[in-house]
Amino acid sequence: MKHYVGIDIGGTSTTIGLVSEEGIILDRLVILIEGFASGPIETFLDAIANGIRELSTKYGQPIEGVGIGAPNGNFYRGTIEYAPNMPWKDVHEVAAYLEKKNACRTVLTNDANAAAIGEKQFGVAKNFNDFILITLGTGLGSGIVSGGKMIYGHDGFAGELGHSIVVPEGRDCTCGRKGCLEAYVSIRGLLETYHDFGVGKASTPQEIAMKAQLGDEYAKETFVKTGEWLGLKLADAATYTSPEAVIFFGGIAQASDLFFPSLKETLEANVHNLYRNKIQIMKSGLPLNDAAVLGSAALVM
Amino acid sequence: MKHYVGIDIGGTSTTIGLVSEEGIILDRLVILIEGFASGPIETFLDAIANGIRELSTKYGQPIEGVGIGAPNGNFYRGTIEYAPNMPWKDVHEVAAYLEKKNACRTVLTNDANAAAIGEKQFGVAKNFNDFILITLGTGLGSGIVSGGKMIYGHDGFAGELGHSIVVPEGRDCTCGRKGCLEAYVSIRGLLETYHDFGVGKASTPQEIAMKAQLGDEYAKETFVKTGEWLGLKLADAATYTSPEAVIFFGGIAQASDLFFPSLKETLEANVHNLYRNKIQIMKSGLPLNDAAVLGSAALVM
Repeated sequence: MKHYVGIDIGGTSTTIGLVSEEGIILDRLVILIEGFASGPIETFLDAIANGIRELSTKYGQPIEGVGIGAPNGNFYRGTIEYAPNMPWKDVHEVAAYLEKKNACRTVLTNDANAAAIGEKQFGVAKNFNDFILITLGTGLGSGIVSGGKMIYGHDGFAGELGHSIVVPEGRDCTCGRKGCLEAYVSIRGLLETYHDFGVGKASTPQEIAMKAQLGDEYAKETFVKTGEWLGLKLADAATYTSPEAVIFFGGIAQASDLFFPSLKETLEANVHNLYRNKIQIMKSGLPLNDAAVLGSAALVM
Repeated sequence: MKHYVGIDIGGTSTTIGLVSEEGIILDRLVILIEGFASGPIETFLDAIANGIRELSTKYGQPIEGVGIGAPNGNFYRGTIEYAPNMPWKDVHEVAAYLEKKNACRTVLTNDANAAAIGEKQFGVAKNFNDFILITLGTGLGSGIVSGGKMIYGHDGFAGELGHSIVVPEGRDCTCGRKGCLEAYVSIRGLLETYHDFGVGKASTPQEIAMKAQLGDEYAKETFVKTGEWLGLKLADAATYTSPEAVIFFGGIAQASDLFFPSLKETLEANVHNLYRNKIQIMKSGLPLNDAAVLGSAALVM
């Protein structure tokens, strides 16, 4: 049995998982980023390298490859570039550094791409060659698979549907532009949609979802509108890569019952007839805590 | 030297070209569709099959393969499906029929995809692995190449940017929806934009271009707005496949001086900073009469 390492680098913590070729996470280590934030990124990367060695030693197994999913990860360069939620700005050659430290093939990509690869290898996208994976969290990330291959674009930055425009001249986005999908469909976006009704406060999408389940019309409407914005943009997305499925991943996706109906209705009402009734809307098939690690490991399988 | 056949099926005429592996069109035959319109499509396809044999015999050369670019052509199925500008509606198995008639490998795709492949093989896209080709004619067609491969989508219908929405609830499109890019940027779109000023009539984009060259402010503004609509949608397109170039093909593209400046300005003003100043806007490098034939031949090379 071959062993791989999948690493999920996030804004607050990083998980290092030892993964079998069948996609079973045999063990995992979690590193909190806080303790490293004031130092150079190398100290943090050394901790990751030690973690990989620890897992390898514990199981007495050589590691076939290390895959990393990271915010603003660039597949071509193995770099994390200007990640807004990480303590280290600028461009950092993460894959090359770890490859040298551990003498083991190391591949890095952005977290949404890693999730898409994980979904293809182990999740609901096993039989799909053309699909879009959307991660709903702090932001809206996306990974596009076409003809069985990840779309990276010429510079490694393809698949940023969160920054396609859904409302011209709409809400301010963190990227400095206006009306991006991410400004409407993300944790921040959902909270803003709910607060815009002026009827109460919520500090998490889970809280809004709970209110909706309890009958709060404004909370329900928040999710209905979220689905409509998604449906509108996915009607456009179909004209680019004609996917057979769009798969949603992340905490907000757990509330799919609240926004899938309006999403599907808006999508079908707005999509060109070439694509009508062809696109499946699905939830991720992987456990929330495992998907990123599995996807990252799948990168090097 | 190997010989291929490239066929450009259009709404009014079909060109059959004998193409060398270096991309030289050695000879061509043109079939006018009008004479076949009242009969079954098979009579028309038989004429194409005879044309292929005629060219092969004339040059005493076997044909290595036949490539076809056609409106609403489906690469996976080798079919022309519900082409609005052809006399034969429904679905027609064109590639299979010709393959049987000529005992020669036959591949079919839509005309914009064929143009994109031609541009990659013989035109300005030789060194690009990630680009979008846009054909401006009766409609707006597009072919998207990512990682060196054509994007077909799960059903063969990917790359229909003409039917992405540029003006929500905007102009009626021939597809039955509203606000499609094609309703603004195409022969019909340009004429409508000019006529909307209410200052005069024009029956072709060439006429508007000539007026613009002669100083007509409304004709100039027609092209400026055309560039703005394109720039807006290409800013969105970048978030899907992050292309290094967008290449324009077709009669209207000849007037690039009139709409490239506003296109570039609008694109750079609206694109996410990940993609800023990275996307080249270019004209096709192939002669208007040759590109479709060369691209179709390149399909089977």
